[in-house]
Amino acid sequence: MASGAGPEIERLMALLSKLPGLGPRSARRAALALLKKREQLLIPLTAAMQDAAERVTSCHICGALSTRDPCATCADPARDAAMICVVEEDSALWAMERVGAFSGRYHVLGGLLSALDGVRPEDLRLSGLMQRVSAGGVEELVMALPATVEGQTTAHYIADRVKQLAPEVTITHLARGVPVGGELDWLDDGTIAHAFKSRR
Amino acid sequence: MASGAGPEIERLMALLSKLPGLGPRSARRAALALLKKREQLLIPLTAAMQDAAERVTSCHICGALSTRDPCATCADPARDAAMICVVEEDSALWAMERVGAFSGRYHVLGGLLSALDGVRPEDLRLSGLMQRVSAGGVEELVMALPATVEGQTTAHYIADRVKQLAPEVTITHLARGVPVGGELDWLDDGTIAHAFKSRR
Repeated sequence: MASGAGPEIERLMALLSKLPGLGPRSARRAALALLKKREQLLIPLTAAMQDAAERVTSCHICGALSTRDPCATCADPARDAAMICVVEEDSALWAMERVGAFSGRYHVLGGLLSALDGVRPEDLRLSGLMQRVSAGGVEELVMALPATVEGQTTAHYIADRVKQLAPEVTITHLARGVPVGGELDWLDDGTIAHAFKSRR
Repeated sequence: MASGAGPEIERLMALLSKLPGLGPRSARRAALALLKKREQLLIPLTAAMQDAAERVTSCHICGALSTRDPCATCADPARDAAMICVVEEDSALWAMERVGAFSGRYHVLGGLLSALDGVRPEDLRLSGLMQRVSAGGVEELVMALPATVEGQTTAHYIADRVKQLAPEVTITHLARGVPVGGELDWLDDGTIAHAFKSRR
């Protein structure tokens, strides 16, 4: 990638450029920052990554990344076991937790059904979800999946299977509408139409 | 930063967000990518960083980051010792090497003089440069410093000192002008004026 830096530094840059959001140029900047801030950045980040590589696993119940199994949420008796929030990835779980509006449990699918990308039901963490639903005690499944074709296909698929397995479980979806602070001018037509239909 | 992820993952995200170009959101995406691609990304990148932390030092001659001291450029007898290209940081050295137009040696200052940021001559790798110039054998000093106030102040300061120490050394500057592929419409007035004055 960058001749003159030596094979070790070039390897570092090549691997950094594989991180999402970093291209070759920003990977070079990141490598330089790491090498110049050895004590404040390179060494602590290396230690944190090593720690993560050794200790972070997936919770066997909900699939969330965690250093504990079961994870803190699944192990917390104060969290409502009657509500399960279904998310695509850990990033959505983290977003929900930052908001702090949800006090139930989670289920991380690890992806979305996609005919285009060849993602089938067995590629997702779906059997675990069906087991949790069939085991009883679940009253509501909150679908916090993206408002995309894949997200909605996955939500429909889950809703269909849950209706067969445990028809008493209520399935809800995050509301669609105008984001807080959102100006109509900047929103796509689909969102505006949805927000108008769901007006209260 | 992100509650719900556990202290280890949060520490990883906090440190990743200190990399240039990564904010809190992209640091979360990067952390998730690392944790999901453990074998392909997290483990090799950790190893590359550990390797860099242990082995990369600064060349005692030119100051470039390298696993060897003297660095490959300073140790290469095929590189012209009569030309020294003065750069602010290793990233500029890497850029010059990618281009491949320069076959001399380098000197990495490690910064630029700045009254605003309190960077004084003794904070830069300047005494080493003056030693190299005074030792004789240097015919040309190519100033490859940024076209900013700090870059030009630093270039003037170096030129003044070199004139006193070794008046036989020629000091040159990278040409200013229209970038290759650059449309006049998009360029600032200063660059256009400079390019007009330096027309050939």
